[in-house]
Amino acid sequence: MALYIELSGIMHEFKNLVELYQGTLLNNVIPFWSQYSLDRQHGGYFTCLDREGKVYDTDKFIWLQNRQLWTYSMFYNRLEQKPEWLDIARTGAEFLAKHGRDEEGNWYFALDRSGQPLVQPYNIFSDCFAAMAFSQYALASKQEEAQEIALQAYNNVLRRQDNPKGKYNKAYPGTRSLKSLAVPMILANLSLEMEWLLQSIHLEAILERSVAEVMEDFLDRDTGLMYENVTPDGKHLDCFDGRLINPGHGIEAMWFVMDIAKRRNDLDLINRAVDVLLNTLNFGWDKEYQGIYYFMDAQGHPPQQLEWNQKLWWVHLETLVALLMGFNLTGRKECWEWFEKVHDYTWNHFSDRDYGEWFGYLDRRGEVLLNLKGGKWKGCFHVPRALYLCWQQLDLSSRKNPQ
Amino acid sequence: MALYIELSGIMHEFKNLVELYQGTLLNNVIPFWSQYSLDRQHGGYFTCLDREGKVYDTDKFIWLQNRQLWTYSMFYNRLEQKPEWLDIARTGAEFLAKHGRDEEGNWYFALDRSGQPLVQPYNIFSDCFAAMAFSQYALASKQEEAQEIALQAYNNVLRRQDNPKGKYNKAYPGTRSLKSLAVPMILANLSLEMEWLLQSIHLEAILERSVAEVMEDFLDRDTGLMYENVTPDGKHLDCFDGRLINPGHGIEAMWFVMDIAKRRNDLDLINRAVDVLLNTLNFGWDKEYQGIYYFMDAQGHPPQQLEWNQKLWWVHLETLVALLMGFNLTGRKECWEWFEKVHDYTWNHFSDRDYGEWFGYLDRRGEVLLNLKGGKWKGCFHVPRALYLCWQQLDLSSRKNPQ
Repeated sequence: MALYIELSGIMHEFKNLVELYQGTLLNNVIPFWSQYSLDRQHGGYFTCLDREGKVYDTDKFIWLQNRQLWTYSMFYNRLEQKPEWLDIARTGAEFLAKHGRDEEGNWYFALDRSGQPLVQPYNIFSDCFAAMAFSQYALASKQEEAQEIALQAYNNVLRRQDNPKGKYNKAYPGTRSLKSLAVPMILANLSLEMEWLLQSIHLEAILERSVAEVMEDFLDRDTGLMYENVTPDGKHLDCFDGRLINPGHGIEAMWFVMDIAKRRNDLDLINRAVDVLLNTLNFGWDKEYQGIYYFMDAQGHPPQQLEWNQKLWWVHLETLVALLMGFNLTGRKECWEWFEKVHDYTWNHFSDRDYGEWFGYLDRRGEVLLNLKGGKWKGCFHVPRALYLCWQQLDLSSRKNPQ
Repeated sequence: MALYIELSGIMHEFKNLVELYQGTLLNNVIPFWSQYSLDRQHGGYFTCLDREGKVYDTDKFIWLQNRQLWTYSMFYNRLEQKPEWLDIARTGAEFLAKHGRDEEGNWYFALDRSGQPLVQPYNIFSDCFAAMAFSQYALASKQEEAQEIALQAYNNVLRRQDNPKGKYNKAYPGTRSLKSLAVPMILANLSLEMEWLLQSIHLEAILERSVAEVMEDFLDRDTGLMYENVTPDGKHLDCFDGRLINPGHGIEAMWFVMDIAKRRNDLDLINRAVDVLLNTLNFGWDKEYQGIYYFMDAQGHPPQQLEWNQKLWWVHLETLVALLMGFNLTGRKECWEWFEKVHDYTWNHFSDRDYGEWFGYLDRRGEVLLNLKGGKWKGCFHVPRALYLCWQQLDLSSRKNPQ
């Protein structure tokens, strides 16, 4: 980090950081997916890519298909109208429109390479990412059909939000009701994404409700931590799910909240989100080996998740985004100090000096656990999105703090 | 190991090993569960116990409730008719008989402390372990009702074996049919357990079919490895589930097969099982840090399971049982050499010098990952069962090889 920025005084080498994030995105990460992930025979994307980009599995997971469609459409819309990017988006959109949904328009969870369904539509986030993806693609392609698919998927999410797993829900009704942070969090982010397609009064109501739910029900005032699961009225339960903290998830939620608060010029809400961000980092940071834990138990008991102490790419990248947003919106010094620390860890451990894209999974000590660039859960999404958002935030900082 | 046995020549210190396994079972492991796991208020057992035995969660998981009932009943039946052991079995049996099943007699997956259902009966192994447990308890208690519960659960397993998850199955029908090693493996073991309750012709047919399925469909002849999932006619599929190897599971299946082969005096089958055991150990042994991996991809691709390189207690304990059975049944030197190696690793890493019971979860390097003695999946089962079986096998060896 000292290479890029010397913070002790007034001199900020923001421009070097802008170049690092921008350059890595444009010259290393996007080219990796453009070169290795396209299925030229069946359409759609390969996401199971080894370190060098070789395909090791051809199944198509709906989350990741839609996320890659979103990413290329978003870059086409916001970065540059490159025909190549639109073509790559189109190959995903056509494959997904043809194979992604059952007869009632619910999104499957996984398809095989040719598009045959493998896993039923049990997961609300498949619909969520479809709505995000087709909304961006509709903007890029100007296709009416894409817009309709986006709205249909969005309505699925609204319809399913109170029972996301539907008939696949294995919880016995009534004994222990818990709601999950992921639902309001993703609904807020998704609705913002689809602002251009939604009625503004509907959008504002959803944002209002989501922020209130996150900051009142899921946030624990005593510890300043975001819980993954609480009762419908926001109480904690002393059970595995009720004690679960996912620091990366809580932190990602905080930049969604800052995004909404910025629209409203609500500096108080922004500062509360930054407080949670900093608290979560203090709680979730591994003091011995550095990096942010994946799962923790709020009371320090052994978590159920055997992968609890691993270091995951998306956790660290979403943290960088949140810290830069917090820094730009509040100027709080702790945000910059944490940014330096997390930036150093992230670039030293997740980026790959020899091949494109980043490693996703490290063990507690920061050594590579899975030698892959993509799999069932890691695709073309968190790395490019976070590099893009960090670049934008750093660019903003550099214009606020001219040398 | 050198402490206990000097194998280079004729002198075998089997007796020291017998004392070690027997003494640890009787003086360290059983007392831990007897002292800390009883819920004297609601009945049933606490299984979420920290290193020292303190309860950190009170949920009751049906697998583990039934497994503890089985363990105490089995020791009462086979070791010593201690009234204390029967009392401990009874507290579990009464709690389970009252709260464990839905109205149709299917076994829930989890209950809260008081016995209210938490998770629906989606899991065939809940019924499996109930059948095992109540069969042993019926022998111990001589209760007609226990026998009826055992047979009902056994019939559930038979009824559900072709679609174990029932309506909770998320696989789309027809695209990719896979069957799982766990089903024939557990059915064989369960049927042997319940021999006294089943008609002998039925038992022999099930054993015959299970062994054929395991040794023909799931065993890959080229590699000598046991696959977790194959097509209904025993072919491999090149997908995550189709490439999955779970060394501990394959090894456990081999001692079930040896157990059946011994009844039939089928030395050829015993030797084939030992071949698979040794092949699996060669494949699954961590050459750098020692110990047996949890999950592997048959083709060396990154597995989906983030916990793949962790070292789990039951994997190592089931391996010790299999190696001693293989050694006693065939006298093959490799079984003893591997036993020495796995014994050393297991006793050096999983046993706890300061408190009762054993650690369950180590990271790749063999350091404790979760500081617990019991949780959602680890209860009073693998450690006491394996210590008992190893003790019996070592005792057999010592009588075959008098000093």
